Amino acid sequence: MRLISFRFPDGTASWGKLNGETVTDLGAHATDLMAALAAAVDLANATGPTVPFSAITLLPVIPNPGKILCVGLNYATHVAETGRQQMEHPTIFHRWADSLVADGAALIHPPETDRFDYEGELAVVIGKPGRRIAPADAWDHVAGFAPFNDGSIRNWQRHNIQFTPGKTWPGTGGFGPALVTCDEVPDLASQRVQTLVNGVLVQDQPISDLIWDIPQIIAYCSTFTPLAPGDVIATGTPGGVGDKRQPPLYLRPGDTVSVSIGVIGTLTNSVIAEA
Amino acid sequence: MRLISFRFPDGTASWGKLNGETVTDLGAHATDLMAALAAAVDLANATGPTVPFSAITLLPVIPNPGKILCVGLNYATHVAETGRQQMEHPTIFHRWADSLVADGAALIHPPETDRFDYEGELAVVIGKPGRRIAPADAWDHVAGFAPFNDGSIRNWQRHNIQFTPGKTWPGTGGFGPALVTCDEVPDLASQRVQTLVNGVLVQDQPISDLIWDIPQIIAYCSTFTPLAPGDVIATGTPGGVGDKRQPPLYLRPGDTVSVSIGVIGTLTNSVIAEA
Repeated sequence: MRLISFRFPDGTASWGKLNGETVTDLGAHATDLMAALAAAVDLANATGPTVPFSAITLLPVIPNPGKILCVGLNYATHVAETGRQQMEHPTIFHRWADSLVADGAALIHPPETDRFDYEGELAVVIGKPGRRIAPADAWDHVAGFAPFNDGSIRNWQRHNIQFTPGKTWPGTGGFGPALVTCDEVPDLASQRVQTLVNGVLVQDQPISDLIWDIPQIIAYCSTFTPLAPGDVIATGTPGGVGDKRQPPLYLRPGDTVSVSIGVIGTLTNSVIAEA
Repeated sequence: MRLISFRFPDGTASWGKLNGETVTDLGAHATDLMAALAAAVDLANATGPTVPFSAITLLPVIPNPGKILCVGLNYATHVAETGRQQMEHPTIFHRWADSLVADGAALIHPPETDRFDYEGELAVVIGKPGRRIAPADAWDHVAGFAPFNDGSIRNWQRHNIQFTPGKTWPGTGGFGPALVTCDEVPDLASQRVQTLVNGVLVQDQPISDLIWDIPQIIAYCSTFTPLAPGDVIATGTPGGVGDKRQPPLYLRPGDTVSVSIGVIGTLTNSVIAEA
């Protein structure tokens, strides 16, 4: 299944299943997709009105996650380009939900930077709550996947040793188009994270290259904080970020950036200057 | 005014005004204290049933803040004891709400550490939303203050360059007892942050020693993320943390830690081993 969160033209938010050019509106089954995961709604059998995809506007896959955890430095190519050493434990930071936009929406380039950078990533969405989840049990807690752009304001990220001030500017990240359930991705390891800026491939690496794999990340994070349905873990970006290229490649108003992950789909966002 | 969030014995949550030994229950005016701040409820004139303080159980001052920002390295004494240099910009990281307990509740010592540390701090609660708030306007956005304990799991904090895995374990921080409105604290600068472990003073410094003062912090943080009513900024801890003492002083089950900030009140928490 491909599950989406969306708005109708009158502004009402809902959620449902994406079936090619149509959407099954499941808003009657739960207030939102996060609540549906928490209530373990029988998504495969849930029914509702069919509406054309063209009649709705996507929201971020989970518009209101309780926690968005981000893994840094999780591909050897990216560790190398940052000049860092691989560390003994995952690098974990976070974003707030207001930093993310949906597939098709514009990323916001704030006036405080000329170093707005993309980071194409695989996001994992939690489906079942847990604490201290063993790696062997981790997949039971995963609802599915989505493309994610951990867009970063590099000059503010480098203000200090903590990434937060560069990582969670409003509208600088993307999350979508859909939550693709695990059964749709039998061969996750071979799916490639491919980021394109104005159609030019700038990041391209398979999920199998993750330093800490998904069960290890879930085990680590769930040790220090409980995970709940709708929580999001962005698993890290491959080498090729704009800030480390020669010459650097930063996002500018008018650009288009996309993060494509094989069968998981493509997240496409334009970039506009903040009004 | 001293505003509190609390539960009745039947588990119902409410909020109200603390008047010494009694509480004015203002639950009829808004669903919670954060909503009351957002709706700009006329708190001074709001009335409601009076209940004895002994009949309620405190919750964290704001049980459900949208954002909890923490400032690191904001007293010269603490910068010095960490062996770091003072930096050009504030150090900002975050906690999630499930990491905080109320005044009088027990802090949770997880089995994964023998380096559970206190950090006494002044917390600022936002009352009015804003983005890119100028320092000169910052006080208009402050609802008030509360003691805060940014309790830290030092071995996990030091796993990596990002603090997150050491800073937001469930029930490891304290926030309370009350939101003390600005008018009750005419002389904020001279109030002292005093942390006591089992009655022994281990941190003691006036708010005037903050490296980045509250308007500067609000201006900086609101540049990269919008601030909303109920958001919390923990302003940093003075020198004297347990991890940097000789010998080190870590919190153990059975200990009591309190953070006292003059007229703003005292946050007291016992420590228990995680069940």
